[in-house]
Amino acid sequence: MRTIDWVDDAIEIVDQTALPATLVRVRITTVDDLIGAIRRLAVRGAPALGVAGALGVALAARTVAEAHLDAAVEQVAGCRPTAVNLGRGARRAAARIPDGAQAVLAEALLLRDEEIAASAVMAVRGADLVTELCGQRPTLLTHCNTGALAAVTGGTALGVVVELHRRRLLGGVIASETRPLLQGARLTAWELAAARVPFRLAVDSAGPFLMALGQVDGVILGADRICANGDVVNKIGSYAHALGARAAGIPFIVVAPESTIDPRTAAGSGVDIEERDPAEVLSYHGAEVAPRGTPAANPAFDITPHELITAIVTDRRTIRPNRGERP
Amino acid sequence: MRTIDWVDDAIEIVDQTALPATLVRVRITTVDDLIGAIRRLAVRGAPALGVAGALGVALAARTVAEAHLDAAVEQVAGCRPTAVNLGRGARRAAARIPDGAQAVLAEALLLRDEEIAASAVMAVRGADLVTELCGQRPTLLTHCNTGALAAVTGGTALGVVVELHRRRLLGGVIASETRPLLQGARLTAWELAAARVPFRLAVDSAGPFLMALGQVDGVILGADRICANGDVVNKIGSYAHALGARAAGIPFIVVAPESTIDPRTAAGSGVDIEERDPAEVLSYHGAEVAPRGTPAANPAFDITPHELITAIVTDRRTIRPNRGERP
Repeated sequence: MRTIDWVDDAIEIVDQTALPATLVRVRITTVDDLIGAIRRLAVRGAPALGVAGALGVALAARTVAEAHLDAAVEQVAGCRPTAVNLGRGARRAAARIPDGAQAVLAEALLLRDEEIAASAVMAVRGADLVTELCGQRPTLLTHCNTGALAAVTGGTALGVVVELHRRRLLGGVIASETRPLLQGARLTAWELAAARVPFRLAVDSAGPFLMALGQVDGVILGADRICANGDVVNKIGSYAHALGARAAGIPFIVVAPESTIDPRTAAGSGVDIEERDPAEVLSYHGAEVAPRGTPAANPAFDITPHELITAIVTDRRTIRPNRGERP
Repeated sequence: MRTIDWVDDAIEIVDQTALPATLVRVRITTVDDLIGAIRRLAVRGAPALGVAGALGVALAARTVAEAHLDAAVEQVAGCRPTAVNLGRGARRAAARIPDGAQAVLAEALLLRDEEIAASAVMAVRGADLVTELCGQRPTLLTHCNTGALAAVTGGTALGVVVELHRRRLLGGVIASETRPLLQGARLTAWELAAARVPFRLAVDSAGPFLMALGQVDGVILGADRICANGDVVNKIGSYAHALGARAAGIPFIVVAPESTIDPRTAAGSGVDIEERDPAEVLSYHGAEVAPRGTPAANPAFDITPHELITAIVTDRRTIRPNRGERP
């Protein structure tokens, strides 16, 4: 199963807002529908967003009048601001517009295939590194969702977890539920159960304490953007886990494809952190608790400074930011 | 309005599981009903639990046969293990059993009145200290619920917040939602709105990042048990906020009555941390996301080491643990 693909002249995605209750594939035939799907997080995860950006431009090249094509590309590229992959995928495909719609699609499909290959390579390199840094059969804490649902197949950090399990070198997983949109409770729990990986779900705020108790041997998660200085922008809550890992003296490992590295952003402080609808904080998968209209702070991402990061594993290399190495 | 009181020969509580949707007072006439109410968190918060323990023994002294009275006292004292106040309140009232049921009740009502007075004193001392440490009109982050609903009237940390607002010396509040049982989103939001204190709700994992962004000038919260070395046991998530506060260089302030200090527990590592039903992690105020039976880690409390604590404010004194002062 592919999270996102090109099928019969349209984009097909797994609708991640419907999981874990139902596995629904949605066919997307217009740029507006794709933008809507991206904004409501029906498709999410940095690698998957890169492919969505490229396929969105391929769709635009076939369906949007030439006079409106540039605007459509910019709409796709900018409909979520924080993950670098979306805009980068869109612009890479758009560079082929002069060669015709078929060339744009070919470029998008090439990006899709690169992300599939990158996942496979990261799983192997990451599993080797975790065994080196965390020892035999560690319990790893992960945050948000970084499995196949965040990529095309395989995944980033969760791909490493599954590879370790396949090698029989994993103790277990603590999956952070990842409020407000519960990518951990909904998506990671679903993927880990399907892969028969032993895990326990935990509220996000329990992570640092479970580390202090010695119940976690390492933290492994993905990235939405990796800055030139090694700062990592990722789902809100990542930074708190990084502080917990440092206090407990355990490795904090980021797994992300090279396509997530943004050399043009010097440091995390330069990244536009998406502030999402306060309503997300007031509810839980549709259930409401606090009265509507209650004010809320809802940054979708946070910034983990490079000095808190033990390693960044990409499809090409391993970077050790807290030793002064830079992407 | 009192969160817990003795009315017409029975215990009356505000049922906190029904808030914020409805404000329901529940009349409790048996020890079993009180234990049920404590276990399901219909009454919670360290000071309120102390009063519940004492009034529970007063109820037992009137309704339980003498042969079963000791067992009833122990059941009340031990039905939640982490907050020291519950057991201490129960045993203090039980010490008067030889003097008759009326003496037991008088002792419980004295404890109730002491907690009311302690709240008032802590509000003033805490507000003075916050102004000294955090400056004019700070934004304070608070976790869980420490308002009148956690005490009899007034509260602990939230009592300080309301006092600062009354003095016009408060900028605003970030209220952590406090998963899994949402005491922040349900109870603190309700109390702050009622007191017209400006606030924003946030998911728990956003706290440390909002601190790193400079949007928080201090953290203020309560305690379920304060150990002899100054370690503070409080709602899960407190430790993560303490790590965030240290990294951001802002004060981390605990407000709790003297009755929360437990000189017989040397350090946090000696405290029995209540592990609650995994089902709490899988759902949100009744709404379920992860499939039933999904394994979960659910420690209800965590331990903040004394070196991360700027100040503990009680009704008698201010202790500065990170300067080496001990309770």
